Amino acid sequence: MVPHLITALTGPINELEQRVLESMPAIERWFRLEWMEHTPPFYTSVDLRNAGFKLAPVETNLFPGGFNNLTPAMLPLAVQAAMAAIEKICPEAKNLLLVPDRGSRSPFYLQNIQRLVQIFTQAGLNVRLGTLDDSVKAGARLTLPDGGELTIEPLQRHRGRLGLKDFDPCTILLNDDLVAGVPQALQSLHQQYLLPPLHAGWGARRKSNHFRSYEEVAKKFAKLLGMDPWLIHPLHGAGGRVGAGDEAAMDAVRGHVEALFTKVRRKYKEYGIGEKPFVVLKSDQGDGGFGIVTVRDLKELEDPAGRLPAALRQMAEAGRGDSELIVQEGVPTFERINDAVAEPVVYMIDRYVVGGFYRIHAERRADENLCGPGSSFVPLAFAESHQLPRAGLKPGASAPNRFYMYGVIGRLAMLAAAYELEATDPEAEIYD
Amino acid sequence: MVPHLITALTGPINELEQRVLESMPAIERWFRLEWMEHTPPFYTSVDLRNAGFKLAPVETNLFPGGFNNLTPAMLPLAVQAAMAAIEKICPEAKNLLLVPDRGSRSPFYLQNIQRLVQIFTQAGLNVRLGTLDDSVKAGARLTLPDGGELTIEPLQRHRGRLGLKDFDPCTILLNDDLVAGVPQALQSLHQQYLLPPLHAGWGARRKSNHFRSYEEVAKKFAKLLGMDPWLIHPLHGAGGRVGAGDEAAMDAVRGHVEALFTKVRRKYKEYGIGEKPFVVLKSDQGDGGFGIVTVRDLKELEDPAGRLPAALRQMAEAGRGDSELIVQEGVPTFERINDAVAEPVVYMIDRYVVGGFYRIHAERRADENLCGPGSSFVPLAFAESHQLPRAGLKPGASAPNRFYMYGVIGRLAMLAAAYELEATDPEAEIYD
Repeated sequence: MVPHLITALTGPINELEQRVLESMPAIERWFRLEWMEHTPPFYTSVDLRNAGFKLAPVETNLFPGGFNNLTPAMLPLAVQAAMAAIEKICPEAKNLLLVPDRGSRSPFYLQNIQRLVQIFTQAGLNVRLGTLDDSVKAGARLTLPDGGELTIEPLQRHRGRLGLKDFDPCTILLNDDLVAGVPQALQSLHQQYLLPPLHAGWGARRKSNHFRSYEEVAKKFAKLLGMDPWLIHPLHGAGGRVGAGDEAAMDAVRGHVEALFTKVRRKYKEYGIGEKPFVVLKSDQGDGGFGIVTVRDLKELEDPAGRLPAALRQMAEAGRGDSELIVQEGVPTFERINDAVAEPVVYMIDRYVVGGFYRIHAERRADENLCGPGSSFVPLAFAESHQLPRAGLKPGASAPNRFYMYGVIGRLAMLAAAYELEATDPEAEIYD
Repeated sequence: MVPHLITALTGPINELEQRVLESMPAIERWFRLEWMEHTPPFYTSVDLRNAGFKLAPVETNLFPGGFNNLTPAMLPLAVQAAMAAIEKICPEAKNLLLVPDRGSRSPFYLQNIQRLVQIFTQAGLNVRLGTLDDSVKAGARLTLPDGGELTIEPLQRHRGRLGLKDFDPCTILLNDDLVAGVPQALQSLHQQYLLPPLHAGWGARRKSNHFRSYEEVAKKFAKLLGMDPWLIHPLHGAGGRVGAGDEAAMDAVRGHVEALFTKVRRKYKEYGIGEKPFVVLKSDQGDGGFGIVTVRDLKELEDPAGRLPAALRQMAEAGRGDSELIVQEGVPTFERINDAVAEPVVYMIDRYVVGGFYRIHAERRADENLCGPGSSFVPLAFAESHQLPRAGLKPGASAPNRFYMYGVIGRLAMLAAAYELEATDPEAEIYD
């Protein structure tokens, strides 16, 4: 099941893998203790990049799609994790209202919803689908590629509770990332569990908060393992704003980028890494893979005519020009499946890794964002292996050991999201 | 992975399967609510028998061996369930002391221990083995068939705590069924979790208590599904005592057997079952598969010369003659793998089904106990299927649906054990 991977596995990452394996009981206990203090997000997917010399999460998704890319072998793990999650949140739960992404009706996305329905039905819930799309006025059947059907229904508010016709759920599970803000229908719900909470939506969430939390988590974890947190943490900072013609703002962006380049070069020198470093500029808000700009050289951000440099024009045009940017150390991905660049994605439900796959993109380079049209997915049997590291195998040579390490780093990013959601919880302020 | 099964699947059991599938969310919710009130045993295996017309647990083991018979594909589920169990019992746990069966050093049993070590290590514990065998005075290495090694060490008591040299565990996991009573080493432990509790050992446990609890559980469950509890419950009753030459006692045994035969025949008639019914006499205590007597005809218990009938001689000779017997409706097993009689065994950790396999025995008949020398095991990929019933398939024709049903009945027996352990908890009496 595990495709042949070509990885540039030089020094540090093999050491990391070895240290992670040796420290397995300590790591699992550390997570257990962290979860005593912090509540994991309900479900999470994390994009990782393995550069050979470092391994880091680059995106933490709290409204994960792509469950359809997990192999069927992973389903029992997902169902068991869903059972554990429900038991903690609302053991008497009968009905679950699943709210799909309002904009997406691609067959791939519908298969993701189908898979989620399957998981939560088998965990013991009556699952129905309610859409945020106001144009749906009555139950509508959507046909899936396998011939199956999904019925989406219009949402109904009744006495402060959200439901469907003849369906009053105790729990509402969002799979819409709320990038366009929080719809009226989801506001001020009365005694219903809304998962994830509204402030996890991209209308409110900021990547800078997440990576700040991740930095904290990575430092704690690195201390546990006695290693440099940089090996699992991409350097980052505020990136300023971009706007056409605003030369002062562009100067500030260049300043941020230059400062980060300096830090990254210092680290590359420290570890004797011959690669040419790069950084990425992203909107501080979610953007679905648009508007991520790879900067390989500061010159790319300079334009003698004072116009917006080509590299940023796309971002400004995507309507993100007026929002904050973050600048982040680029982590090249050196994993390949056949000739395509590959990056692992780890899926979690509650605190458990339930599966994962490789996102591959034959047309992009190792330093580019692989999320976007043209990408494809290779389901990997994470489930069979992530928890089953094999002691004694040569570091870097064992897929099970690799996947265990990926599961650990994925969980670190999930833990960071838990920190982030606590720090940004608007209701927590009441008690301040 | 699923071997070809030949099952005599006539009316009622297919109806049961269909009803179980249709009621899946209700069943899972029912279990969730039960687990809010009752604590599942730490780990459990349940032997089932599928007669075609009924499906029932015949043995509930609270110190399960045979984890080595589960397929490797089931390991992640077992690890995840172990994580969930530890998190609830003792989240800060670092060290686990595993106490193997004191008498057994067969390679099969050692592989079971090896598998348990693997599961709990990967769940994040430092696992070491301490033996109840007093003849072990220093750490001893035992070699496994795969070339691996296990080290067993002598137990040490220190200030009321049980451990090993330089090893103070917070949790002690017993895999010895304590049939010979509770050793001094395990008594009056100070602030350590002992799992399962001492009164789950066969020195204290009685099958009659278990099956009484199972009857209660089966009735509740049958009410939920609107069906006759007999379809999942073997009729049972007290069986008296046997002793050589004690004719009055033998009369009493015959009376119990006859009364049960009458009840069973009535049920067979009600359901139009053409099979010839049989009953089994067992010691009320655990006996490792010895001393189970199949009675096909009351005449087998009569002996004109007043001697102990042959059928019971074996039991008396096994030293159980002075203990109470139970008499239980025999449930024939009509599943076959090739030509061998097969019975499914379901494995659970905490509340989760983590796997299962078929115990097969080519030399025994459908109405005999399959546990004993000569039996073999076919690991079945329960893990891939037990939670994944497939709606819409013909009843009785789908292995995944069959296994989901087995997982449900296995969990009913586990729930019965939870009831039983509550009812028999000696410490609970303090609060009466």
